[in-house]
Amino acid sequence: MKLPGQEEFEVSSACENVPTGELDNGTGSGPSPDSPSDTDRGEVGVPKDPLLFIQLNELLGWPQALEWRETGRWVLFEEKLEVGAGRWSVPHVPTLALPSLQKLRSLLAEGLVLLDCPAQSFLELVEQVTRVDSLSPELRGQLQALLLQRPQHLIQPTGTRPCQGSAHPREASHSEEAPLKEQRQNPLRRKLPPGSEAGAVLAGELGFLVQPLGAFVRLRDPVVLGPLTEVPLPSRFFCLLLGPSTLGKGYHEIGRAMAILLSDPQFQWSVRRASNLHDLLAALDAFLEEVTVLPPGRWDPTARIAPPKCLPSQHKRILSQLKEVQGPSAQHGAPAEDRYGHQPQLHSPELQRTGRLFGGLIQDVRRKASWYPSDFLDALHPQCFSAVLYIYLATVTNAITFGGLLGEATSGAQGVLESFLGTAVAGAAFCLMAGQPLTILSSTGPVLVFERLLFSFSRDYNLDYLPFRLWVGIWVATFCLALVATEASVLVRYFTRFTEEGFCALISLIFIYDAVGKMLSLTSAYPIQRPGYPAYGCFCQYPDLGGNESQWMRTEPKDRDDISSLDLGLVNASLLPPPECARRGGRPRGPSCHAVPDIAFFSLLLFLTSFLLAMALKHVKTSRFFPSGVRKVLGDFSSVLAMLLGCGLDSFLGLATPKLTVPSEFKPTLPGRGWLVSPFGTNPWWLSVAAALPALLLSILIFMDQQITAVILNRAEYKLRKGAGFHLDLFCVAALMVLTSALGLPWYVSATVISLAHMDSLRRESRACALGEPRSFLGIREQRLTGLVVFILTGTSIFLAPVLKFIPMPVLYGIFLYMGVAAISSIQFTKRVQLLFMPAKQQPDLLLLRHVPLSRVHLFTAIQLACLGLLWIIKSTPAAIIFPLMLLGLVGVRKALERVFSPQELLWLDELMPEKERSIPEKGLEPEYSLSGDSEDVSPRWALSGEAGRGGESAFVQESSLKSNLSIKPEDLINTVIPLRSSLTQVH
Amino acid sequence: MKLPGQEEFEVSSACENVPTGELDNGTGSGPSPDSPSDTDRGEVGVPKDPLLFIQLNELLGWPQALEWRETGRWVLFEEKLEVGAGRWSVPHVPTLALPSLQKLRSLLAEGLVLLDCPAQSFLELVEQVTRVDSLSPELRGQLQALLLQRPQHLIQPTGTRPCQGSAHPREASHSEEAPLKEQRQNPLRRKLPPGSEAGAVLAGELGFLVQPLGAFVRLRDPVVLGPLTEVPLPSRFFCLLLGPSTLGKGYHEIGRAMAILLSDPQFQWSVRRASNLHDLLAALDAFLEEVTVLPPGRWDPTARIAPPKCLPSQHKRILSQLKEVQGPSAQHGAPAEDRYGHQPQLHSPELQRTGRLFGGLIQDVRRKASWYPSDFLDALHPQCFSAVLYIYLATVTNAITFGGLLGEATSGAQGVLESFLGTAVAGAAFCLMAGQPLTILSSTGPVLVFERLLFSFSRDYNLDYLPFRLWVGIWVATFCLALVATEASVLVRYFTRFTEEGFCALISLIFIYDAVGKMLSLTSAYPIQRPGYPAYGCFCQYPDLGGNESQWMRTEPKDRDDISSLDLGLVNASLLPPPECARRGGRPRGPSCHAVPDIAFFSLLLFLTSFLLAMALKHVKTSRFFPSGVRKVLGDFSSVLAMLLGCGLDSFLGLATPKLTVPSEFKPTLPGRGWLVSPFGTNPWWLSVAAALPALLLSILIFMDQQITAVILNRAEYKLRKGAGFHLDLFCVAALMVLTSALGLPWYVSATVISLAHMDSLRRESRACALGEPRSFLGIREQRLTGLVVFILTGTSIFLAPVLKFIPMPVLYGIFLYMGVAAISSIQFTKRVQLLFMPAKQQPDLLLLRHVPLSRVHLFTAIQLACLGLLWIIKSTPAAIIFPLMLLGLVGVRKALERVFSPQELLWLDELMPEKERSIPEKGLEPEYSLSGDSEDVSPRWALSGEAGRGGESAFVQESSLKSNLSIKPEDLINTVIPLRSSLTQVH
Repeated sequence: MKLPGQEEFEVSSACENVPTGELDNGTGSGPSPDSPSDTDRGEVGVPKDPLLFIQLNELLGWPQALEWRETGRWVLFEEKLEVGAGRWSVPHVPTLALPSLQKLRSLLAEGLVLLDCPAQSFLELVEQVTRVDSLSPELRGQLQALLLQRPQHLIQPTGTRPCQGSAHPREASHSEEAPLKEQRQNPLRRKLPPGSEAGAVLAGELGFLVQPLGAFVRLRDPVVLGPLTEVPLPSRFFCLLLGPSTLGKGYHEIGRAMAILLSDPQFQWSVRRASNLHDLLAALDAFLEEVTVLPPGRWDPTARIAPPKCLPSQHKRILSQLKEVQGPSAQHGAPAEDRYGHQPQLHSPELQRTGRLFGGLIQDVRRKASWYPSDFLDALHPQCFSAVLYIYLATVTNAITFGGLLGEATSGAQGVLESFLGTAVAGAAFCLMAGQPLTILSSTGPVLVFERLLFSFSRDYNLDYLPFRLWVGIWVATFCLALVATEASVLVRYFTRFTEEGFCALISLIFIYDAVGKMLSLTSAYPIQRPGYPAYGCFCQYPDLGGNESQWMRTEPKDRDDISSLDLGLVNASLLPPPECARRGGRPRGPSCHAVPDIAFFSLLLFLTSFLLAMALKHVKTSRFFPSGVRKVLGDFSSVLAMLLGCGLDSFLGLATPKLTVPSEFKPTLPGRGWLVSPFGTNPWWLSVAAALPALLLSILIFMDQQITAVILNRAEYKLRKGAGFHLDLFCVAALMVLTSALGLPWYVSATVISLAHMDSLRRESRACALGEPRSFLGIREQRLTGLVVFILTGTSIFLAPVLKFIPMPVLYGIFLYMGVAAISSIQFTKRVQLLFMPAKQQPDLLLLRHVPLSRVHLFTAIQLACLGLLWIIKSTPAAIIFPLMLLGLVGVRKALERVFSPQELLWLDELMPEKERSIPEKGLEPEYSLSGDSEDVSPRWALSGEAGRGGESAFVQESSLKSNLSIKPEDLINTVIPLRSSLTQVH
Repeated sequence: MKLPGQEEFEVSSACENVPTGELDNGTGSGPSPDSPSDTDRGEVGVPKDPLLFIQLNELLGWPQALEWRETGRWVLFEEKLEVGAGRWSVPHVPTLALPSLQKLRSLLAEGLVLLDCPAQSFLELVEQVTRVDSLSPELRGQLQALLLQRPQHLIQPTGTRPCQGSAHPREASHSEEAPLKEQRQNPLRRKLPPGSEAGAVLAGELGFLVQPLGAFVRLRDPVVLGPLTEVPLPSRFFCLLLGPSTLGKGYHEIGRAMAILLSDPQFQWSVRRASNLHDLLAALDAFLEEVTVLPPGRWDPTARIAPPKCLPSQHKRILSQLKEVQGPSAQHGAPAEDRYGHQPQLHSPELQRTGRLFGGLIQDVRRKASWYPSDFLDALHPQCFSAVLYIYLATVTNAITFGGLLGEATSGAQGVLESFLGTAVAGAAFCLMAGQPLTILSSTGPVLVFERLLFSFSRDYNLDYLPFRLWVGIWVATFCLALVATEASVLVRYFTRFTEEGFCALISLIFIYDAVGKMLSLTSAYPIQRPGYPAYGCFCQYPDLGGNESQWMRTEPKDRDDISSLDLGLVNASLLPPPECARRGGRPRGPSCHAVPDIAFFSLLLFLTSFLLAMALKHVKTSRFFPSGVRKVLGDFSSVLAMLLGCGLDSFLGLATPKLTVPSEFKPTLPGRGWLVSPFGTNPWWLSVAAALPALLLSILIFMDQQITAVILNRAEYKLRKGAGFHLDLFCVAALMVLTSALGLPWYVSATVISLAHMDSLRRESRACALGEPRSFLGIREQRLTGLVVFILTGTSIFLAPVLKFIPMPVLYGIFLYMGVAAISSIQFTKRVQLLFMPAKQQPDLLLLRHVPLSRVHLFTAIQLACLGLLWIIKSTPAAIIFPLMLLGLVGVRKALERVFSPQELLWLDELMPEKERSIPEKGLEPEYSLSGDSEDVSPRWALSGEAGRGGESAFVQESSLKSNLSIKPEDLINTVIPLRSSLTQVH
């Protein structure tokens, strides 16, 4: 159950997706070791400190039964001991009362501060700490005994998700106290990266002390302090906060304050480098300067705040500290250029024009060649197996659905078999040769639309389709080659979100329209029988055995279509079902013979079931139920599972629903043609020249479809190390175009959604999963092997026909509807359309709405809607064949929008085009804007370049991380197994 | 789209649902004026201060184009000006940087503080404020001119929800500056209660000042300061914070700090009473003592926190301040007893045993008699009209559905007509006489279950049902009278949540089971035709006209049931539909004649459509779409709308789905009986005595069903002023029992859900709806008229038969399913069952889980599940008739649980039984526990009595507000138009 308040709680914080230690230690070949949890460390320009695990041991039970009990622990967030429930609380943002920080400050100021204490064991440490004047020898002994008392830890078994790999904590070999068994077995140990250190805070009321006793120790060498901390990590910090009962429960809060301070990255950074008490207090004061204060009247201090999705950047805070402490020379850590020679900048080098013919292509080949061996070695990781399974299922589903539709669109000139074969051949070839081997090639909606138009055209003019199509393919390949030669791919920088969204929305709508339309057409094919028709029923009539031939003849004319309620007179009848009747020489009579009852509604039920189930399963992934592994499987395979359930339901009831038609033999679907398409067939020779005209349009389409996908896949947020290959990819697509045309197979381009799913299944993430820290994304396993294996498997699946013929068409339509709905709900345009229906008060707190007047937002949305409407109309008229040109027209419309909207507005609503990007100088944005990211995907791509105090690198880093929020989120699309911009479209 | 982080964000804060000013000014008769927004004021023991509207005017544009612009405003929460978007931000919890508070403190300490300044106009005020030594006369003039400059306000039209009523701001008649037109037209004005005051903070950088200028003014008499504030409210506070550019943007933050301070209730309270600078600074320091601090490393300071659902109690904060300032005599405001003589305590006085025969009943009658005139006068409010419409529709739906099921259960001994008539008669009579006239009487599930059992029994033993039933009714009335006489209703205190949930879960499950079962039984009634049957088809056969009589005879025996595929030989046939065929003397032949095609799947579609639509519409209420009025209508009438859509769909397709059968005449459904049931009929005389046995069981059932509902309705969180009438209500139910039994009408008891819906539609709420403040609940319009009108309308609806017969049964089943699902998902038990399927890490942060070990929670859930299973088994066996006893057994099981669980655990999992309540003394709970409420409904009823420093009254107040979170939330149930604990059950 959701609270209204919660629903409106939209955290907007500047996400940081900083590049990690990987930059320094990644070798680029072989399975890279998962790098440690390093959200706070490893940022550009900041030396890395070990992760600190902090534990608060509280002294309870004064005066009767003194015992130490761990009541809180921190890494990034706070976990409290729920005493009653005997469990750790959910990790949450720690909150403090201001006075406890002030009390802590005075305790530290008056207490003992030992920096770089040389103690080698807990005993030594305790001796050092208790060596204060205010304690009598007797009290000192008592205190020492108390401190050495073993604390109570709550050690919980972990959840169901095992963290892979095992940590190797650097155990101090000279430690006198061996860690306890329960410490060693603590599952938390595996979640903390190797090299982590511990900090222990001991606090509590101790009545025999006359005055408070505060001690802060930084050990010179971290030492495992026996059973002090629940995990046997070497301790770096130790803090003692004891005192008489005057403060009461205050010690708990003061202890928490100390622990929270230590868990703050900046304080930790400072205190590791502090050389005296003054530095320590200065660090505390610096912390106080930056705290956020919530007024008591408006915030319940006991409320727990869930960890934000992403943490504020600590980079600037620590960097400023660094400069202060170490002077300008401290910048040594900032790499100007990474190992791979990528100068971070707004557009990657792949999109810089070289000015030479095929210059881009040559560069691409050169760049990729150096990675080629590693493209196979990097695939040696278990994760790749599951990726193959997932993508294989998605590809097969894709091939089935598109194959079925292509067959319909081209009256069998292509079909499921061609779809399987083409997918396998083209996909495998692309994976071997392409610039971006993570791309999955597939039939896509726009190309299917065009193919359908081309087929109608050639049918209308009695052309031989496949030879005509071969020439179109050859011409397209020629044009694409010209585009490669002239480095036209650099123009993709003009494809802004406006264009992407227009393209995507059109395709998604076609998906939805066609799925529903095809479903409804089933109800005409299988009409619903209404009662009260004048004629009704069905029986099997034989020729009159009694030789009454005239009667048989007499009813003959009526047999053609609807038989009225007229008396049939004397007939020789049986009640055999129509097929059986025909077999026995009779003929079925009556309107009900042609109608199959129940099919229409049952098909509708199957359609809705598959759609709703796929939607529901997709949401399982973010629900609270089931272990995360189960959730992930259910979510990732939602469409496959929905399809399986639909098939099961269908075969359980055994009704004669329309099924997928698949060939049972390995031969072209069109009877009588060989695998190679003859170059002319029955067409006149000049048609091979005239084919250049439609080929021009198709080239535009292929270029847009291919390159928009390529831009999305090569976005900086995916942290690809091996670079893109826009020119090489286009070249490969052109080459495959010729091959598939010659063999009469479907045409293929990159498919966005399935490729994103591929990349998502190959994500490398940091291992830490404890204590509320979000796993950080390290990169993608870039290799060629997974794709290759997927397509080889697809090729062997041609022999799946006996299984595939059980798939009912309504189930496929339901999955199509799901894909259309999933794709269209993932774009920002849809969110803005929704805004039109929300009263201003109810609108979510999007950054977009904070910076652009609502009327301007609505105007932009209205223009997009108008463009979409226009595209839809064109697609539905005889002029449909020019629709690739209209898609290109979107770029022009976007350019014209610069006259209507200010650059600032376009920055928030869309993104800037190349020229304009340079036109907004440093002053552009106020700091607040650049600091506040947004959890919704509405951040401007460019927002951060104006931020003061950041080098080009870090601005890029931030920019790229903002980009990740941009238009299509992988997790939204991952279930859409068929490309976002692909469709089973039908131009009417 | 939800973020994972957000979903896990469960605010847990101590809600306060304090009684409001209503206690002081409510007269109890006539439409009470909506009391002002008083979340912060009007609490017990704290004198009320006017609401303060605070505005920050910032000086922008130094040095070229100086202008004042309103950049923030506060009442409870903060609204910032979104400069780019030209709109106010969503209201959010204000956050501050600590240094700005410190800078503010020093500015105030060194600045000018004028308390009780006698200025009567802005001009005078400006003169007073600028009279500081540090300003040269020239600068002073410049500054004065600047201050008098008109500020820029952003005045927005409001949303679509109009706030009722209009405010009458107390305008200072002697003000020299008349408010501007835009100020007067500001829609915000209507949202602030009459008597509100304004506070203006002016801050900014002013380069010609040499040193910062701080001034704080409290006006003796609040004055409208011309165009200074956007709403023309009389200003009480004025604060000026100007200075040279050394602080830069700091003035904005310092100004915000001042405004946030002023918006804090405690600071406001103190500063209204401050007599010098010292008091002012002390108030600021007191504020600082209580602020919550968020560490910079874990919280992005620019993130906006949505207003919590309920604010922390300011009661204690201000009361402690009050004591400090005014000494012990300050307690004058705390009423020991309210106007209505209700001593606040754990159980209301209605449940105190008097010890006299009928003592409780007499007390009830006496108490209610004094309210009787006001019970009609209080209904004179437009809100009551919409309540009547809503509840009428719900009641009619209820009567239709229960009527249909009763007819089935009793083979027509009762039916829809009886249901309408009985509902009208019993409901109206109850509304006129009962102790709690907000209760809506209805057929309920448990009673229906029992009636079905009774009918089966009498049929099995060949008894005359209605006379037998009459005697049962008479005996039940007798037993109930005895219960009233002995004041047995006080035992309801033993009905803890355990019992309520067991009862509720059983009934909900019966709803769900029956809805699905009845739907599936339709598929047997209208079988699905599978292809490939040996026999098939249908035609109309006439007797052989040619006199071939033998053939007609020959096929005769086969006509009986299934006709095989055998040849029929020569037949005289036509293709007329079966009814037409029969009319013309033929007979339909063939298996398809008996099967109606498509009905089964279409019914299933109707069933699912109604269910899913009702569920979806219910959620519209909490969505962001549509204006709130539309949302409320869609949500409130979800089941009615779903039913209408189902009927529309059905009649659009015109298929022969099974429909509701309704009598077309006003006469008993059972043919041949009069309205009065004969006392003996054909039964032997001794049966009238033997009827006492089933009557005993029914009495237990009626008592539990009636009283559990009554307890829920009379919960303290509804702030009912006129008290409950447990004894009187039971007496009325008993009297109506005799009447309905004599007339052969259904039996009626209180229905939880519909009564809660009734109360919800009569909620009185505070008017304030601006600035993020939640509307506060003032009470219910307690009166008898709405119920009475509803039942009179229901009575006249008996003549709706021509309309009702269009309702398809699958639609009704769908609505039943919805009701069952809605009811079962609203109880805590369901949440705990869900916990069983969640990994510990994914579980929501429920208070329950913070305090009770997970294994104990699961054990408790398992025991409840076992009880439920046992009840279900008993219900399904021949022993079903004793199931009321088993329900009572739940109380015993709960008692036994005290041996298994500690009182602390039961406190969180359930609630305590009367004896145990006294057994947990003050020490019980730690302060933290009592402070932290929970947004989920899992707070213990009793949690707060241990809190230190609270009198009995406030503990009660908190206790009752916690109770509101308990088991069934009205908003969850409001859509379930048929009682939660009612059912269309069928005991198998």
